[in-house]
Amino acid sequence: MRMVRWQPGARERLQAAALERFAAQGFDGTTVAEIAATAGLTERTFFRHFADKREVLFSGQDEFERLFVTGIAGSAETDPMAIVAAALEAATGFFPDERRAWSRARQGVIDADPGLQERELLKLSGLAVTMTRGLRERGVDPTAAALAAESGVAVFRVAFATWIAEGEERSLAEVQRAVLAELRSLVR
Amino acid sequence: MRMVRWQPGARERLQAAALERFAAQGFDGTTVAEIAATAGLTERTFFRHFADKREVLFSGQDEFERLFVTGIAGSAETDPMAIVAAALEAATGFFPDERRAWSRARQGVIDADPGLQERELLKLSGLAVTMTRGLRERGVDPTAAALAAESGVAVFRVAFATWIAEGEERSLAEVQRAVLAELRSLVR
Repeated sequence: MRMVRWQPGARERLQAAALERFAAQGFDGTTVAEIAATAGLTERTFFRHFADKREVLFSGQDEFERLFVTGIAGSAETDPMAIVAAALEAATGFFPDERRAWSRARQGVIDADPGLQERELLKLSGLAVTMTRGLRERGVDPTAAALAAESGVAVFRVAFATWIAEGEERSLAEVQRAVLAELRSLVR
Repeated sequence: MRMVRWQPGARERLQAAALERFAAQGFDGTTVAEIAATAGLTERTFFRHFADKREVLFSGQDEFERLFVTGIAGSAETDPMAIVAAALEAATGFFPDERRAWSRARQGVIDADPGLQERELLKLSGLAVTMTRGLRERGVDPTAAALAAESGVAVFRVAFATWIAEGEERSLAEVQRAVLAELRSLVR
């Protein structure tokens, strides 16, 4: 049997170290060796946790999408936008307030790199596709499903940007509810 | 003075030839030489009209965005969603019914190629950014501007997919009005 020494908190230390290096010297200008050294760990330990340095910024995406999917499937609502609101609420579990500083720093790194921006955009587009499918499985007609899903992603995107803005103190759930209310008042 | 022989209709012939080749043998599997030969023109003529073969599918983007920008700037409305509705209406000028068959074939090519899908996604994301900026210049607050712009792009996207669906006969303007009405009834 091969022994794998598990470093407690290694994953979190690597994530913090990566953000620190990316912020200081850019995403492209940072190597995995530097991230590992900054975290006081080996490259081998890095690769036990992440496939590559981009993965540090995008890991957890499956879990994030799953919160939306189970939020849609499990909602007691039948109105499409009410289902979407329930899914948005469920997804805030992924972003507790303790995560705000990390999310803010991560966004700074992404905003500085066109390739990472594209990756992020594709992630959110994939989320809209996933939500559309989930709504259709709930019996929502195709047009309404697509519109409700896209609106939900728009609300998430705007709320998330507000949540990580300097000085914002409301939880993501509170911000999201306010943004959804603003959408309702805008579109009616 | 250098003589440039202008081929009447060359641009349109190249576009039709490119779509025909892309559909038959894939985007990656098609060369500019084949497109030119299919159109009965030279490669040199191709490059007088397009920078590369991808450009055949994405040319006109600036004009398309400009219709939204001038639609937003020129609208007599002050309500953000009414401004967006005016911009959506203005942009339908880019897609007369004569263009439907071409747009449908183009979409088939894009749907078959992940790289082209990304490019299309980035285009629409850029449109949302442009519309948000236009709304802010009209004095709309940042959150409302972002939500109205994203909603507008969602309406365009869903309406466009409906417009190019097999058997659809309504104009894009008609479809878009119906989709916007559906969004209003969903979100209220």
